[in-house]
Amino acid sequence: MATGDILEGLERRDPAVLARAISLVENQRDGFERVLAHAYSQVARGQARRIGITGPPGAGKSTLTERLIQEFRGGGLRVGVIAVDPTSPFTGGALLGDRIRMESTSLDTGVFIRSMATRGSYGGLATTTDEVADLLAAFGFERILIETVGVGQTELDVAGTAETTVLVLVPESGNGVQTLKAGVMEIADVFVINKSDRPGADKLRQEVGVMLGIRRGNSKAVRRSGGQAAGAVVSDRPTAGPPDRPPFWEPPVLATVAVQGTGVAELTDALDRHYAYLQSSGALEARRRERVRKRMRSVAERAVRQWVWETTRADELLDERLDEVADGRKSPYDVAAEILEQVKSGALR
Amino acid sequence: MATGDILEGLERRDPAVLARAISLVENQRDGFERVLAHAYSQVARGQARRIGITGPPGAGKSTLTERLIQEFRGGGLRVGVIAVDPTSPFTGGALLGDRIRMESTSLDTGVFIRSMATRGSYGGLATTTDEVADLLAAFGFERILIETVGVGQTELDVAGTAETTVLVLVPESGNGVQTLKAGVMEIADVFVINKSDRPGADKLRQEVGVMLGIRRGNSKAVRRSGGQAAGAVVSDRPTAGPPDRPPFWEPPVLATVAVQGTGVAELTDALDRHYAYLQSSGALEARRRERVRKRMRSVAERAVRQWVWETTRADELLDERLDEVADGRKSPYDVAAEILEQVKSGALR
Repeated sequence: MATGDILEGLERRDPAVLARAISLVENQRDGFERVLAHAYSQVARGQARRIGITGPPGAGKSTLTERLIQEFRGGGLRVGVIAVDPTSPFTGGALLGDRIRMESTSLDTGVFIRSMATRGSYGGLATTTDEVADLLAAFGFERILIETVGVGQTELDVAGTAETTVLVLVPESGNGVQTLKAGVMEIADVFVINKSDRPGADKLRQEVGVMLGIRRGNSKAVRRSGGQAAGAVVSDRPTAGPPDRPPFWEPPVLATVAVQGTGVAELTDALDRHYAYLQSSGALEARRRERVRKRMRSVAERAVRQWVWETTRADELLDERLDEVADGRKSPYDVAAEILEQVKSGALR
Repeated sequence: MATGDILEGLERRDPAVLARAISLVENQRDGFERVLAHAYSQVARGQARRIGITGPPGAGKSTLTERLIQEFRGGGLRVGVIAVDPTSPFTGGALLGDRIRMESTSLDTGVFIRSMATRGSYGGLATTTDEVADLLAAFGFERILIETVGVGQTELDVAGTAETTVLVLVPESGNGVQTLKAGVMEIADVFVINKSDRPGADKLRQEVGVMLGIRRGNSKAVRRSGGQAAGAVVSDRPTAGPPDRPPFWEPPVLATVAVQGTGVAELTDALDRHYAYLQSSGALEARRRERVRKRMRSVAERAVRQWVWETTRADELLDERLDEVADGRKSPYDVAAEILEQVKSGALR
């Protein structure tokens, strides 16, 4: 399909063309940057809100996502979902069952669900996810849910491309919270204790509250505005700072039972409040600019990388040097210096 | 410390200098590539074996690592450990307790333990880990254990730099195996069911066996050599193929209780057998060449990236274009094309 046809198909909101455009972007085939540049021009000032949903395996993220879709659809909003999903060359995807179940909502044209594999996008998954989100936004989806499975660094980077990040925990996480908190706790804007009808839910909620208290106690913003916040305050309202300071956001800790739909309306309320906070505090604009800057850098890096390895003879050079490097006559650093020298001088062709 | 002094300090095996050399490499400070090139020249044909240890949080990897250290030390081997550990700007590292406990062995000069943060090495952690392992190998450590916490893509990439990868599971992983198997199951050469005195251990061992049976049933190597292997065969010996085929490796599924040291000798046996298999099958040489090729590419990419962002005016250009891109007059792809054009023509200075 020619790039022009894709752009035209996106224009008339053909879901089949959207699916093809996403594949084009995922596989970085010819013309993908043109399609993305076009999508970008439509969404730079766009209204779509991006919501990241992350948490350990088994926390019920897919079910919660499904409930959020229903809630948003009930409010007349169109919803795009990107499920970032580790697939396997052997089994063809671990969470296929979850996905198929989730796609029960997909007869509704106001919903579009896409799984993305973490394999193959090595090093650039966050960028690719952000780009697919652009396509969905340009297509007119007003809420974009980005669900990541697992809590590794890659998954955190992916969740970090959203404006609001939800961390879903379950009582079973238990002492897992101890392990989770590093990195994960810090990026969450909203905490959800799912399966909160199970034993241990209150304890977990309390633990998360304590951790947020510590984090708040450590944060300069809080110190500046009084520093009295060492306790386990669990609140779900943005708190106004002193009149000369912007307000800050205290992540709420919500309880849900996603299979029953319990607490989902409260979650969408919290998402709305967080968005309102982002707008009123100026953080939305700041986050967007930061994201744009990261994106420019990442896209430029990719373009340079693709040029080096796919169109010049650098890759061939690696083959030529492999024997010498493998037996220690040269080091990888010698070869890297050789390639860099050619890049610098404009001699790499 | 001057690069020359570092090289000299490494030469006379000063552990304090090793620690500084690792910091130099981790932070990619001036001269790090020279130190690495030197280390590389000593290890290209080296005797150090790299063993990756991965698995979900709470599986007891640190305890098992500690036991492996003791076992190797008992055999007169010097052991280096790289613990890849997600740290947090708020708490200063989630697993510090584990680490301190593990460092109880560190009064022994035949052991060197180093934690590495996943923060800050964005995108290049596998390469940095491999480079730190080179430093340890050049320093004379004969076994290098690379412990990764968590099972995200980054952690898998890190574990993949080892010659032998051990996946540690616990009965509590329960239906986690279902989620884990994608990606993780495939890279493991040896499976360990730790805490195997707990309920569910036999069931888990069986499940893993079944999964390996399926994987074996799917693999071409097995089909070619008979294909009768669809069952839950759990073996711990490399099986010889027909005379005209190289032998293949059937990952063993071992049971340990690391806190008591149970099963650790069997694990080191399995590691030795896997290494012997790698040697006899030619896979060792093939893996090393593959690793060298990846390393050359990754090091060259890093060199180009550092040059672009740290020594040319590309970063400044991003700032200049930020407003236009943020409000949609330009796209990130326009800016990337501009930067690439300058790189190609040798005009980027």
